[in-house]
Amino acid sequence: MFRTTSDILKGLGVVRPTLLVDEGRARANLSRMQARALRSGVGFRPHFKTHQSPGIARWFAAAGVDRITVSSVPMAEQFADVGWRDITLAFLLNPGELPAIAWLARHLEGKGGRLGVTVDSVEAARALAAVGGLPAAAWLKIDTGYGRTGVPWNDAGGLRAVAAALPAGPVGLLTHAGHSYRARSAADLQALWAGTRERLEAARGSLQDPRLLLSVGDTPTCSIVEDLRGVDEIRPGNFIYYDLMQLAIGSCGPGDLAAAAACPVVGRYPGRREIVIHGGAVHLSKESLPGRGGGTVFGRLGTLTPDGRLGEIIDGAVIVALSQEHGIVRFGPEIAFPDAAELGIGDPVLVWPVHSCLTADLLRHTLILPRGD
Amino acid sequence: MFRTTSDILKGLGVVRPTLLVDEGRARANLSRMQARALRSGVGFRPHFKTHQSPGIARWFAAAGVDRITVSSVPMAEQFADVGWRDITLAFLLNPGELPAIAWLARHLEGKGGRLGVTVDSVEAARALAAVGGLPAAAWLKIDTGYGRTGVPWNDAGGLRAVAAALPAGPVGLLTHAGHSYRARSAADLQALWAGTRERLEAARGSLQDPRLLLSVGDTPTCSIVEDLRGVDEIRPGNFIYYDLMQLAIGSCGPGDLAAAAACPVVGRYPGRREIVIHGGAVHLSKESLPGRGGGTVFGRLGTLTPDGRLGEIIDGAVIVALSQEHGIVRFGPEIAFPDAAELGIGDPVLVWPVHSCLTADLLRHTLILPRGD
Repeated sequence: MFRTTSDILKGLGVVRPTLLVDEGRARANLSRMQARALRSGVGFRPHFKTHQSPGIARWFAAAGVDRITVSSVPMAEQFADVGWRDITLAFLLNPGELPAIAWLARHLEGKGGRLGVTVDSVEAARALAAVGGLPAAAWLKIDTGYGRTGVPWNDAGGLRAVAAALPAGPVGLLTHAGHSYRARSAADLQALWAGTRERLEAARGSLQDPRLLLSVGDTPTCSIVEDLRGVDEIRPGNFIYYDLMQLAIGSCGPGDLAAAAACPVVGRYPGRREIVIHGGAVHLSKESLPGRGGGTVFGRLGTLTPDGRLGEIIDGAVIVALSQEHGIVRFGPEIAFPDAAELGIGDPVLVWPVHSCLTADLLRHTLILPRGD
Repeated sequence: MFRTTSDILKGLGVVRPTLLVDEGRARANLSRMQARALRSGVGFRPHFKTHQSPGIARWFAAAGVDRITVSSVPMAEQFADVGWRDITLAFLLNPGELPAIAWLARHLEGKGGRLGVTVDSVEAARALAAVGGLPAAAWLKIDTGYGRTGVPWNDAGGLRAVAAALPAGPVGLLTHAGHSYRARSAADLQALWAGTRERLEAARGSLQDPRLLLSVGDTPTCSIVEDLRGVDEIRPGNFIYYDLMQLAIGSCGPGDLAAAAACPVVGRYPGRREIVIHGGAVHLSKESLPGRGGGTVFGRLGTLTPDGRLGEIIDGAVIVALSQEHGIVRFGPEIAFPDAAELGIGDPVLVWPVHSCLTADLLRHTLILPRGD
């Protein structure tokens, strides 16, 4: 169960925690999401915070993607540097970053592109206005129920005040329905999608401007809802890799998981039915999920296929604890404890992360599978 | 309550999540721990995984520290590069890293220093022996109750087998009593210390070699136990900064907290009594503590003193949720919701992290307070 995977990873030279990205699966995830947007007649502005990789960004460009979302100014700068021209910064405007934002907006305009920024307060809108002549598209952030940021969708006075304070008014209304991460069924997600769309339309109604664009973005709803009509663009990000959390939500199947970590075994404890891997909080992040029979899951072991692609989840091989550099993997009664011939000290195992965005952010060293392209 | 802190941080040019280290507090933490080791007559080999900073390492060198602990090969290489010569790699030997380890061991030997490595299996000991003539000191890792790595202290057969497989035998027995993080009183920690020492002595007894050195290291016990006699060296790391977790354990007082994060406010929601900061899982880590009245704490707000040093914890201003780039701070009924004059959009706040090792690992940009030295 472990030998083939370890041998392939050793053959690839893995000796430290390393991100593995399955190019075939990731490109299939991309095609599927893009096709859904196309069929629904909505724009596709994928969020690049998940991969943060100029190399993987080229797969999007090759598929015809010409507009993207990012979550920080440095991330916007990074992708502008490699030629992306139409970038929405879907993170609330921080006035302290306005010098960098102004430079970037002018740089993108000079390339025939455009920077989008996001505000949810009169104060931020005024700070933007104070720059004067900034060539940026301002999106008004709407809280459609997640409760993190945004003007509440039904706060008509608040919406009008922020819109009025924007230099050229908002270009549209932008929301992130992050409460979709609490959903655990397709029916939940369908209902959440319908509610999000209705709330955005109600907010647009309050502003009495039917030209306002509607932008939504979260992987769970965009993965489950076939017909995305009623909005102007979608901004999912995690779908390029998916992860155990998306699997728990129901956004993807196990065969869609496109990113994993390779982590060498450094300790074997048959008496406890545990191994310890080099793969801790600084590699995988401390994001967790509740375990099926109680306890906490920080990741699960998996396999590579014999031809070196990402394979399956191994039931009963769970990361139950993480410290800074260590992960403890516990084997359930359903599988034999691997003997040393199958999994020795130094052999890399494959780990499915709970939250691929955080794991990819931490693991800078990435292998694209299969190797050779 | 917030204005002075924000003004100072703005004056320092903080516009993005930034680590703040209070030099006075950190050096005081260092002096106190070093003095305790000296009084007890035990060696002091601090763990550098907490700060990972060549600059902060100079404070240790200035205090006379000449031996250190690290938790990864790249970290060992980083500190060897800036002149440290006596380095123990307190992370189980990974045979895949042996080429790098062999290079480093020879490099340090050439400088008159020494590399220490750690093993807990016959397999790893044999891999080490197979290199031949490696000038490294091998420590036998002992599990004294934490249950993560190490040969169980009372497994006499296991201890003898690993010791016999080491090329020149072990130089000593090394343990990390990480279960001290579950302690919540000084009495717990005193008992744990006594138990750890006794178990190490028992393990040494099984090996019938009284020359074996004993090395222990965890911040909670080393912070609380005044008399550390009975071992040869201590390897605490977190004590240089401490954090909210150490405060909950009782290892430190609030005035010892020496690292914080500065995070700009990007959203204000008086109706929810919440603000949103630029400071998420990729800056603070998702390490958490249980809240006093239920819920989960991912950090707490705090103050700077008027002269720009780290100040106090603000009761009732708690980070209750983190996503990739966002943190949600909730204000309890005990404090007034700060009006915009006191805390506006873009103003940085000070955040005390739950686990400073992880926050320092994530926040590469560090300001030493007070500025000007």
